Amino acid sequence: MNIACLDFEGVLIPEIWVGLAERTGIEELRATTREVPDYDQLMRQRLAVMKTHGLGLKDIQAAADALEPLPRALDFLNWLRTEYQVAIVSDTFYELAMPLVRKLGYPTLLCHKLQVGADGMIAGYTLRQPNPKRHAVLGFKSMQYKVMATGDSYNDVPMLREADRGWFFGPPDNVCRDHPDIPPVFGYDELKAVLLQAKRDFS
Amino acid sequence: MNIACLDFEGVLIPEIWVGLAERTGIEELRATTREVPDYDQLMRQRLAVMKTHGLGLKDIQAAADALEPLPRALDFLNWLRTEYQVAIVSDTFYELAMPLVRKLGYPTLLCHKLQVGADGMIAGYTLRQPNPKRHAVLGFKSMQYKVMATGDSYNDVPMLREADRGWFFGPPDNVCRDHPDIPPVFGYDELKAVLLQAKRDFS
Repeated sequence: MNIACLDFEGVLIPEIWVGLAERTGIEELRATTREVPDYDQLMRQRLAVMKTHGLGLKDIQAAADALEPLPRALDFLNWLRTEYQVAIVSDTFYELAMPLVRKLGYPTLLCHKLQVGADGMIAGYTLRQPNPKRHAVLGFKSMQYKVMATGDSYNDVPMLREADRGWFFGPPDNVCRDHPDIPPVFGYDELKAVLLQAKRDFS
Repeated sequence: MNIACLDFEGVLIPEIWVGLAERTGIEELRATTREVPDYDQLMRQRLAVMKTHGLGLKDIQAAADALEPLPRALDFLNWLRTEYQVAIVSDTFYELAMPLVRKLGYPTLLCHKLQVGADGMIAGYTLRQPNPKRHAVLGFKSMQYKVMATGDSYNDVPMLREADRGWFFGPPDNVCRDHPDIPPVFGYDELKAVLLQAKRDFS
């Protein structure tokens, strides 16, 4: 019995914080896990920039609301749901992700929570647990699932290594170069092909 | 962060094997986990009856295809998806459940697999693991989720006891009587109310 664990941003949806950067014109908000491998450092940096510019939860929620899933993402996901059980395993936050989850027909999403002050400003964030993507895979393995996983960036590496099969999805060159043992796939057609092969191999 | 684990038959959909009993007129197929607490015994009994009557996978799949979710089940599930992450935790089989999963918009389903012979007859079944419903709860707990669970029968008891909060959903008298410490709820409105209260309590 098989489950597919998909990273969210970069696999099914655009980068939410890049959307905020474009909406606000604040270039410092463009950084993602592709450039800053340490997620805590990245989030501290993002929240400091938001504070400086007086941006609160409603601003980043508006940026998230304005985004659409990547082209063909919903078709891919709907196909995948007929072949695999699916869980989105992401380092995003429920408060930002839910409009996009709705647009994708409410797949199960495992991610984190923001801490929002009474003034609507983001006071901090609560990671669900250390190494959350790897623990998601371990959790499904403890339920005796074979886990196939894909993601596009450094924070996906522990998930891809722990999974029974893991692939980078459209990764940038630096991510590939730093982890040459993790095979990359490009585009949904190639991802479908490796997922179908894995399903046959584990049946 | 919270997840709701729902039993499938009796909570969101009718009993699939009762549907087969009605379609075929074979009364012995009416037994469910409500009457036969030992699931292995129940499944051996069902498969023996199917063999005697020459019924194969296509017959029970046709019975499953003909079923619809319970009245208001889709509305309830769509509401729940906006309030909780959701996993269906069932002792059914993927081969039978998928038409009903489709009708409910593909929620994540954790269940089992049938073994089907080349002749289309059901040769047996593979339970994902011993005590699968309890292990599903433990798996989500290992991902640091608070788990709320509901189900209508004996096989749900280990899940309801392991969950942070667990309720019987519209249980028959014998199930309630045998487990008086597990609170029952009746109908989706009452289930919504306890789930919302639990969400507040764990936030």
